[in-house]
Amino acid sequence: MQNTYAIGIDVGGTNTDMGLVRDDATIVARRSIPTSIYTQLEPYVRDIMEQIKEMVAEGDKEKGTGAIALTDLTGIGIGAPNGNYYTGCVEWAPNLTIKGLLNFEEEFHKYVDCPVVLSNDANAAAYGEYVYGGARGMDHFVMITLGTGVGSGIVVDGKLVHGFTGTAGELGHNILIPNGRQCSCGRKGCLEAYTSARGIVQTYVELRQAKGTPAEAANHSDWIGADIADKEITSKMIGDAANAGDPLAKETYAMVGEWLGLACANACTFSAPQAIFLMGGPTKVGAPLLEPLKKSFEANLLNIYKGHCSIYMSHLKANEVAILGAAALVELKTN
Amino acid sequence: MQNTYAIGIDVGGTNTDMGLVRDDATIVARRSIPTSIYTQLEPYVRDIMEQIKEMVAEGDKEKGTGAIALTDLTGIGIGAPNGNYYTGCVEWAPNLTIKGLLNFEEEFHKYVDCPVVLSNDANAAAYGEYVYGGARGMDHFVMITLGTGVGSGIVVDGKLVHGFTGTAGELGHNILIPNGRQCSCGRKGCLEAYTSARGIVQTYVELRQAKGTPAEAANHSDWIGADIADKEITSKMIGDAANAGDPLAKETYAMVGEWLGLACANACTFSAPQAIFLMGGPTKVGAPLLEPLKKSFEANLLNIYKGHCSIYMSHLKANEVAILGAAALVELKTN
Repeated sequence: MQNTYAIGIDVGGTNTDMGLVRDDATIVARRSIPTSIYTQLEPYVRDIMEQIKEMVAEGDKEKGTGAIALTDLTGIGIGAPNGNYYTGCVEWAPNLTIKGLLNFEEEFHKYVDCPVVLSNDANAAAYGEYVYGGARGMDHFVMITLGTGVGSGIVVDGKLVHGFTGTAGELGHNILIPNGRQCSCGRKGCLEAYTSARGIVQTYVELRQAKGTPAEAANHSDWIGADIADKEITSKMIGDAANAGDPLAKETYAMVGEWLGLACANACTFSAPQAIFLMGGPTKVGAPLLEPLKKSFEANLLNIYKGHCSIYMSHLKANEVAILGAAALVELKTN
Repeated sequence: MQNTYAIGIDVGGTNTDMGLVRDDATIVARRSIPTSIYTQLEPYVRDIMEQIKEMVAEGDKEKGTGAIALTDLTGIGIGAPNGNYYTGCVEWAPNLTIKGLLNFEEEFHKYVDCPVVLSNDANAAAYGEYVYGGARGMDHFVMITLGTGVGSGIVVDGKLVHGFTGTAGELGHNILIPNGRQCSCGRKGCLEAYTSARGIVQTYVELRQAKGTPAEAANHSDWIGADIADKEITSKMIGDAANAGDPLAKETYAMVGEWLGLACANACTFSAPQAIFLMGGPTKVGAPLLEPLKKSFEANLLNIYKGHCSIYMSHLKANEVAILGAAALVELKTN
């Protein structure tokens, strides 16, 4: 059977990464251009298309395809902040230098006739897991992405849930604790305020203020006990310290795990997923997060879901998920 | 155009109501048999079928159809506690006298060849709203039913969300307030613990214990201020008192509205519905519930959903929704 190829584009605030993706989940070629030098959509898409044309011209050397015609692509998938599946537009994304309502789909269709499919990055990650990763064959699952923010993508009956607005799946802004911690969205108590990288640092800082740095802590990580400003602390530093045995760092991730486990249990009451996948920097800490998370998940799970939903880490590589996820979106319009 | 007919069956703990439903949302005939006298599925379904045979034999007099053949029915839809759409079984429903794993679909197929479709009662109510009620044409909405418990049905892309297990849509057991009020499910802080009929009474009783009955209260409802035991108070009595101006009763429903509004806002982060419908006894109180509910909903709603989701009362009549909802389920397997 002959392979098929799609383009996946990950629109980030700083860089735009793209790749030529073979249907066996291999990124055959990849390119990157800066995003933040653009203030207009037209030159931005023109320059992306230049890169795409180069990639397809070179083709898939491993398979000896020779040049691949643009018309032979199954489609172009784009994962972008505030990307709306229905309209094909990026809608006033705060972290992009190109402002306003941006009709990506229309702009790309000046160059190609294949499907151009846009969604937000967390939805793309979820669908990447479905098409290329650990969720293959799972028609009901949830992806939660931890990073600067907390995103999510929800798959029901094998399709991404986009909702009436095209912007469904914002579990990061599900209010976990009424009148809780201030969230960047302006509301209080959102999951993101507790389990994003920023939320993790805030928990650590609050614990340190309340309890002081334990005397033995300096043994675990050289920054602990040093005169470090709160804003220089990262979730990764806390994660490393947790794995080195630092009690405050461990307590921090235990709390994050407890919150995230509750959020996962609540997600089950909605779509009764077969699995919840996690990805993103803060999940890399491993056991200090995952053990309390799974414990909290089981404790908070409604009886009828027990034994029917598992929590997994994304099976896709961190440096591939964005491009694979974007490319996977094409399947939404071709299947 | 000729009309089509389906059977809708509402399996309740005490009675089983059924009707012959015309596709214009008219219940042409209805019957009821007691449920609680049965301990076996076989005689129960046999007796239901007797009633169905009578109804179809009489046909639709208004339209002058004469007898309708069982083979001309579009299907039999069944709304039942713990009804599983995938398996066609009722799974260990605590409030039924017929115990165990009950294969309704198989049992009915001894009598008919048409589709037999089973789901839980809240899912049936949601789909009834979609096929016959106020959600016609809405491909993304949520139904929340308030009663002894709190149920929900979620429609995404025009289909009921059943999830991996067949038991999705249990928003009554979404944990609204971590470590909150004890819920009948054994966990704490579920929406049901706050907004079911029982939860409403509990809130009133707690307020009365904390604040005492206000001196002027006896003017509003004759039971207030009387020596009434907590367990004799109903959510309807509190609702009537709220509408009569009793301050504790008004405060009770204001709190219920605030909780329910938060739950509705949280539901939006999942499926971005176009509307959230409410039904059930406690919603009949009207303004004392709906005004604080809508205020809380707006206050707790993530910005991107503002203006895109409305809260409505079910458009179906209280004494018809269960049968219409059950009959509507047939559409899931015929469309």
